[in-house]
Amino acid sequence: MSDRKQFRTLTPPDELHDTVAGLDIDPGTETVPLAEARGRVLGERLDAPLDVPGFDRASVDGYALRASETAGASETTPVSLSVVGTVHAGEEPDVSVGAGECVQISTGAVVPSGADAVVMVEQTSEGDDGRLVQTALTPGSGIMPAGADIAAGERALPAGTRLTARETGLLAALGVDSVPVRARPTVGIISTGDELVPVGESLDSGAGQIHDVNTPTIAAAVASAGGEPKRYPHVGDDFDAMADLLERASAECDLVLSSGSTSASAVDVVYRVIEETGELLVHGVAVKPGKPLLVGELGDGAYVGLPGYPVSALTTFRVFVAPAIREAAGLPEPERATLTGELAVEERFEPGRLRYVPVGVTTDGDGDELVYPVDKGSGATTSLTDADGVVAMAPETQYLAAGESVTVELFSPDVRPPALLGMGASGPGVSRLLDAASPDRGRPPRYLSRGEQVARSWLADDVPDFLVTSDDATGGETLGAWTREWGLIVPSGNPADVTGIESLDDDLRLVRQASGTGLDAAFGTLADDVPAGTTGPGIESPARQVAGGRADVGVGLRATADRLGLDVVSLGTQRLRVVVNPTRTEKSAVARLEAALDSLSFEGLAGYERVDAPNSSSKSETR
Amino acid sequence: MSDRKQFRTLTPPDELHDTVAGLDIDPGTETVPLAEARGRVLGERLDAPLDVPGFDRASVDGYALRASETAGASETTPVSLSVVGTVHAGEEPDVSVGAGECVQISTGAVVPSGADAVVMVEQTSEGDDGRLVQTALTPGSGIMPAGADIAAGERALPAGTRLTARETGLLAALGVDSVPVRARPTVGIISTGDELVPVGESLDSGAGQIHDVNTPTIAAAVASAGGEPKRYPHVGDDFDAMADLLERASAECDLVLSSGSTSASAVDVVYRVIEETGELLVHGVAVKPGKPLLVGELGDGAYVGLPGYPVSALTTFRVFVAPAIREAAGLPEPERATLTGELAVEERFEPGRLRYVPVGVTTDGDGDELVYPVDKGSGATTSLTDADGVVAMAPETQYLAAGESVTVELFSPDVRPPALLGMGASGPGVSRLLDAASPDRGRPPRYLSRGEQVARSWLADDVPDFLVTSDDATGGETLGAWTREWGLIVPSGNPADVTGIESLDDDLRLVRQASGTGLDAAFGTLADDVPAGTTGPGIESPARQVAGGRADVGVGLRATADRLGLDVVSLGTQRLRVVVNPTRTEKSAVARLEAALDSLSFEGLAGYERVDAPNSSSKSETR
Repeated sequence: MSDRKQFRTLTPPDELHDTVAGLDIDPGTETVPLAEARGRVLGERLDAPLDVPGFDRASVDGYALRASETAGASETTPVSLSVVGTVHAGEEPDVSVGAGECVQISTGAVVPSGADAVVMVEQTSEGDDGRLVQTALTPGSGIMPAGADIAAGERALPAGTRLTARETGLLAALGVDSVPVRARPTVGIISTGDELVPVGESLDSGAGQIHDVNTPTIAAAVASAGGEPKRYPHVGDDFDAMADLLERASAECDLVLSSGSTSASAVDVVYRVIEETGELLVHGVAVKPGKPLLVGELGDGAYVGLPGYPVSALTTFRVFVAPAIREAAGLPEPERATLTGELAVEERFEPGRLRYVPVGVTTDGDGDELVYPVDKGSGATTSLTDADGVVAMAPETQYLAAGESVTVELFSPDVRPPALLGMGASGPGVSRLLDAASPDRGRPPRYLSRGEQVARSWLADDVPDFLVTSDDATGGETLGAWTREWGLIVPSGNPADVTGIESLDDDLRLVRQASGTGLDAAFGTLADDVPAGTTGPGIESPARQVAGGRADVGVGLRATADRLGLDVVSLGTQRLRVVVNPTRTEKSAVARLEAALDSLSFEGLAGYERVDAPNSSSKSETR
Repeated sequence: MSDRKQFRTLTPPDELHDTVAGLDIDPGTETVPLAEARGRVLGERLDAPLDVPGFDRASVDGYALRASETAGASETTPVSLSVVGTVHAGEEPDVSVGAGECVQISTGAVVPSGADAVVMVEQTSEGDDGRLVQTALTPGSGIMPAGADIAAGERALPAGTRLTARETGLLAALGVDSVPVRARPTVGIISTGDELVPVGESLDSGAGQIHDVNTPTIAAAVASAGGEPKRYPHVGDDFDAMADLLERASAECDLVLSSGSTSASAVDVVYRVIEETGELLVHGVAVKPGKPLLVGELGDGAYVGLPGYPVSALTTFRVFVAPAIREAAGLPEPERATLTGELAVEERFEPGRLRYVPVGVTTDGDGDELVYPVDKGSGATTSLTDADGVVAMAPETQYLAAGESVTVELFSPDVRPPALLGMGASGPGVSRLLDAASPDRGRPPRYLSRGEQVARSWLADDVPDFLVTSDDATGGETLGAWTREWGLIVPSGNPADVTGIESLDDDLRLVRQASGTGLDAAFGTLADDVPAGTTGPGIESPARQVAGGRADVGVGLRATADRLGLDVVSLGTQRLRVVVNPTRTEKSAVARLEAALDSLSFEGLAGYERVDAPNSSSKSETR
């Protein structure tokens, strides 16, 4: 753990920005087919190689003629011209227009020589010996002259143009099939750590294995920033393997990002490779999350070592690395989307470094924005999926009271905070309610499952719009209620012959629900003299341990047992109520929740039953 | 042309929206690898299939221990524990923690049984017979418990979630390698017209050929809206071929878009196929551009017939079709980005239909937004590339005076109007100036090359920021100037022995510059008794006709002749001045233009020379 000594002098965040901006990751230009050019950035100015259209083109269906011959023509005094031929679109005219003559012509066809105008068919009629023209024309009318869209030699599109459908139209008109665009910088992605297992392979949790989160996550973030991610297989902390991979990646990529292990040996490898082939520019930055950041030059390319925790890796990537990738790709910085709101609950911070705190946003009953922290720690991926953006906290800030105004930097301008925020009990019934309350498009409700106790405290702070609770004392209007059957979940066939609470003894491995949940409280009232057992973190976790053979009995729902093919010894039913925050009854999303409840069906969910929704208290039924 | 009769009853735009929204183009769901899921929309709710982390995990490097044994510990009164083993990340612990013991542990490693806390290595020191712990710990500190990120059975991500890097992180942590997402609706694209040639093949302009603009353009627009474009080869107006293609496309796609030919025969084919296999719902809509729109059901799929002109096709697609594709793809409607500005020049409209007028946006000297029409007609692709959005004009509006307030619907929320707008003369020197005045990133200057005469009139209306002009009378501060040599461009070797104006006669095919350009005016003063010849629309067009053997002599620049390998008989030099609009001298983009002029080099441009930039008048030099 000698690497910890390296962090004595942390680089200030502003300086880090400059260092990363100074890295050479410019990928130059490349040529892509027009069909793949959408979203790319034009690499050089493009001048029109030809006139568009390439000929004087009829812009209406009608008759090509000499404008001078229509002087004075009107509906009552039409001019008669003899029709000497026809020109369709895509045909070379085999006729020219002389005095007293006209040629029938289609939209898009070449105006035949001799003609200088085209009259719309609607302004003509059939005459005895020719076409009767009922209007006077000026030269050029009804004609799009050659080069009128764009003429040869004109600047068609400047370098730096982002190519959308509109530019595709001009390029196609010019016959540009191969488009010179800024290349996407190739960004190599290396995750390190002996504990990593690729997504898609199964985990041995007992051996501390986890999925390699950073490779796909950083790859997605690189692609969003306009880079071309190149995924490498993850490596353990082996010195030689890591050195080889870093060298190979630096030869193949414009920028190499590693993440993960900050163990002494891993950092030593990065040092050695950088020292042999380049230069270490930054080691450690005064920001949280993200302290152990490395920046350097690696062979011909650039290198950034991201922290290993997913939240830290993605946050530092977003703040420090993505802008450099966008610049190399020629993409503009997106508009910084920020919003200002009131902090919903007080927050304490460890001072000393600039911090990026993940937060969610909701609106209170007056439509004002409330900002709540969703930080489950840098190791938790849900710290980001439950959040809408970050609040940057100055190094000296140690405490913010509820109600203080904070500025949220949204993760992107596309982020729209959910219209509805719930908290409380979780389970398949709650999930079904949330599905039903989701709009057809746009963001579904957010539901923070942090246990009923935290939910009640946040409701007191006026944060969530609604709660799902088994606690009959929780106030507020009850929108609806249901009961769910629960009990002791045992393997199929009940091999240990469990018949109830009385069967539990030290020989049976028991897994309870997490403490603080309503289900564990109910279990506690029934069974205060049974073995403590262990607890599972989620409503399905005890059952899954039974299913996996790691436990003999788990406390859980009949619906879970049913779905996992397990048996259950019923201990009763628990009533869950959907309680609306009294300050949010007028929110339109709450009306959607109410409508969802009205039509909610628990068909197929074993042990679930809709019940009347009294506002008054009454104890959960048990047997 | 019997189809014109069909347009008697035009559908109102609002009704058309409803009809298109009612088409069934829902593509259902599909499964994609996690690595390709970015930007997609989750097709169903995803519940956590496992606890993350799957074990109690050390969140710091340090020592796993029993918290109760550290009661009262401090730097001065440390507690000594004997180190009984080590656990690294990715290892199954082979040791447990008993009384008086601790185990060295790495971040991410499994907390061994018996321990309920991990102390950071920084809060310990080496003792004589064990590790000295210098702080009191509470149970759980230094540990991320199993399921603390997300527990098995919890709602991980709701259906409808747009997948970004953040959601990728959670999916990876859950081991989700195949992601159920909303499928992209497959949208078949068929362009019709005998005159069309695929982009990349050469044109026979004499035969009225043009490139197939709509196929790549609509394909790009479909992809932007979240659809999967399927390009079909274009077809002519042949009845059977078109019927076959429509039937094949409708079998293969959720939605078929045709564009192009509105000839009687083509419309008849669509009719016949729709009547045989589906239903025609709309024929003709009260909107401009876009009147001849068709909507129907075609076999199992939906059909929209777009107008043939690129501007009409893309505008009607954007307004009426894109929302239906986004809905089918599960994507939210983008924020409607609008801005309000003053109309810069007066505009007259043909009344009777809702019109979408392409407009550009610029800012005047006070920073207020000015809106100018850029409509070169529906056949001109540059009507859209020179524009930033559209103004929707009510059917009854016939006239808007300059200065009236109008609301611009930007083409997308990403659109940022260019910071600098120029007009006037065009040519390679002007293009080079514009390159030099482009920011490193972000939008380059816009330059409308509509001839010097229009430019002077728009300057009088205070629209452009600057002009490039050969007219010495144009007022305003001159930022810089150069001269360019011009003359009679002839094939290499000058086969007709042209020596000057006096050589021009009826036997030589002469192509002049377009009338209204400064170069044609200069030619006119020298040569008022020479044959009229024809004109080329752009500065290079006459030379290109010489190069292509379609002309013997072209008026143009020495630089053009040089680049195309042609000879030139010099007729003099023309001075171009860069003149700034007096109300825009303080605009920051004008300062960038000035800086660009200061360093502008014409190296490699034959016949170009920087000259002093007098504000006073003096005639162009000729010889």
